[in-house]
Amino acid sequence: MQVSQRIGGILGGGSDGWDVFNRARDMIGDGVAVTELTIGEHDIRTAAPILQDMHRAAMAGHTGYAAVPGTNALRDTVAKRVQDRTGVKTTRDNVLITPGGQSALYAAHMVTCDAGDTALYLDPFYATYPGTIRGVSCTPRRIATRAEDAFQPRAADIAAAAEGAKSLLINSPNNPTGVVYSRATLEGIAQVCTDHDLWLISDEVYDTQVWEGEHISPRALPGMAERALVVGSMSKSHAMTGSRCGWIIGPEDVIGDLINLATHTTYGVPGFIQDASVYALEQGTAFEEEIADPFRRRRAIAQRVLAGQNTVSLVPSQGAMYLMLDLRSTGMSGEEFANALLDAHQIATMPGESFGEAAAGHLRVAMTIEDDAFEAALKTLCAFAQTCAQG
Amino acid sequence: MQVSQRIGGILGGGSDGWDVFNRARDMIGDGVAVTELTIGEHDIRTAAPILQDMHRAAMAGHTGYAAVPGTNALRDTVAKRVQDRTGVKTTRDNVLITPGGQSALYAAHMVTCDAGDTALYLDPFYATYPGTIRGVSCTPRRIATRAEDAFQPRAADIAAAAEGAKSLLINSPNNPTGVVYSRATLEGIAQVCTDHDLWLISDEVYDTQVWEGEHISPRALPGMAERALVVGSMSKSHAMTGSRCGWIIGPEDVIGDLINLATHTTYGVPGFIQDASVYALEQGTAFEEEIADPFRRRRAIAQRVLAGQNTVSLVPSQGAMYLMLDLRSTGMSGEEFANALLDAHQIATMPGESFGEAAAGHLRVAMTIEDDAFEAALKTLCAFAQTCAQG
Repeated sequence: MQVSQRIGGILGGGSDGWDVFNRARDMIGDGVAVTELTIGEHDIRTAAPILQDMHRAAMAGHTGYAAVPGTNALRDTVAKRVQDRTGVKTTRDNVLITPGGQSALYAAHMVTCDAGDTALYLDPFYATYPGTIRGVSCTPRRIATRAEDAFQPRAADIAAAAEGAKSLLINSPNNPTGVVYSRATLEGIAQVCTDHDLWLISDEVYDTQVWEGEHISPRALPGMAERALVVGSMSKSHAMTGSRCGWIIGPEDVIGDLINLATHTTYGVPGFIQDASVYALEQGTAFEEEIADPFRRRRAIAQRVLAGQNTVSLVPSQGAMYLMLDLRSTGMSGEEFANALLDAHQIATMPGESFGEAAAGHLRVAMTIEDDAFEAALKTLCAFAQTCAQG
Repeated sequence: MQVSQRIGGILGGGSDGWDVFNRARDMIGDGVAVTELTIGEHDIRTAAPILQDMHRAAMAGHTGYAAVPGTNALRDTVAKRVQDRTGVKTTRDNVLITPGGQSALYAAHMVTCDAGDTALYLDPFYATYPGTIRGVSCTPRRIATRAEDAFQPRAADIAAAAEGAKSLLINSPNNPTGVVYSRATLEGIAQVCTDHDLWLISDEVYDTQVWEGEHISPRALPGMAERALVVGSMSKSHAMTGSRCGWIIGPEDVIGDLINLATHTTYGVPGFIQDASVYALEQGTAFEEEIADPFRRRRAIAQRVLAGQNTVSLVPSQGAMYLMLDLRSTGMSGEEFANALLDAHQIATMPGESFGEAAAGHLRVAMTIEDDAFEAALKTLCAFAQTCAQG
């Protein structure tokens, strides 16, 4: 039996640069002790008080169908949080609760683009971006950012690619680069969106993980609230990745359309998870800083380790749980280096090429293991890079 | 800003027959005591031991990303259950875990149909069916079943509509009619699917609620395992509607494609919910019968009440948590009757027309309130119908 053509088209074909990741998985399966620096997930679990609140809500009977748009309590709590953080007036009617951020990314493209339309995204990119665009039967158009700009996108590059496109997807703080877009960058992006009548889909799931500068939501820039759809999530900010609870913020009428879509795609999010999310959000910024703190610490460790050598250079690390290391001085590709490092020292990292051509010759290191092990792994990595450069 | 055309197209436009439902909601909001016979959801909550197991799993640390296809434990448990119930060899590679049955319906249409394709469905239908088909940018083609056939579909009617279609969506036990498709009906459907090379999408979420005859999964018919995608869920069988945990059963290669889709649409289901689902499924058929028993009891009550009069006749009630009542002897449409009943006696029911033209002059009654109140409401309904018929 023939499946739909669009399903086959979701994967782009060709090598996806995830060979190292899969090899590391196989080695772990074979019992090899691998130092895991590939995973974009906290090395802690969801905090017990959040899980206890979830259980309380479930035992209290919040186990039936929840309202498809989300509970009023969570929509209100998210709206207030967004308004407090951005200054943009936001009510529950600007909020759709989704089963995770990925679901929100998919829905945001469904509501902005028709089949056959072109949707823009920036390279390097989070692994699912082009597949999400293909998944809604659209054509992904890649816009390369540049290592020499520390991967801050240039407005002119976006403008040059914008002809005929419907949307632009951005992500700041950025996975995989750890870069936080500056106000100038975001103002340039906003101008291009206005000039070319683009929807801006802004993935801000790392918005609580900022080590330098500040997170600016482009929805807060003049005229942008009407053309911005902001994706958020409990996953990274509250270490609730497995709870699959996220949201889209947008204009009221678009949220109305998205509710119709949600009725036919997901039919809501468990009520007890939404209640636990309200509880988690009510813990305030102190709790969010506690969740972010290990990455802040490890980024400082990395800065210290890297200061002691000249082979590996760090892309300015401003946010998110990743470091992007520039290894071009070794003369090796990211894939070559990552494979060699895995073989020589059983340290698993992601080649920059996994996230697009723009990150060639780079390596993404997730700061998601305990401090001492992280420091030791980075030291080994640097020493190995030096050997490679001399070799 | 202009949203996509496809989003606006999800709703079919025109009256959807849900006015009575919305009026009842408003009355309840105004403090009126309404007898609620509209809701397709148990009047019990998820059982405490299931919730306790969920909490155990969460506290034990199953709070990170779960594997996108579902946990091996749940995939294995669902596969075994399906194989035990149908006799068709089924392994975890035939199973994708989804965040609820609606998500499975959406994915099943995505994997079988391309944008612009025609997808078949039967009238009367569950409310989201045509919108789900439009949501994947396909054209829904309605095939009417007939009250005189007790809404068992005729193969010839399906064959007459099959030209150029890619898929057929069926639902047995059926919402809204309470009909369970006979072996003859399903064999006819299977033949049409084979003759016209149609995918069969079989929504079997009510498979544990059968009062007469037996539930037959069409995937078990000769040659059908390769062209059937079966949608299942924890919602109805285990009173876990709010947990949003369902699945698709299908050929291995199709499940592989669906995993790619899930990576870009939902990114998995909470691990602690999957663990609780394993626990719930391990309780076996005795527990499932306990969950189904109230509906079995109330269906017997309805047969007794309806036997005492001649105005309202019951469409042969064989399964699911609904009764379909034929009110055509009153000369009123389902909508007229439902509105009049709500006004006169504050009893809320769903007009047959809410579920398609084929159920005109009918009324769907959900058996989802306590036995005595259910019996009293049915008696009032019958007496009211008699008044209407004489009036």
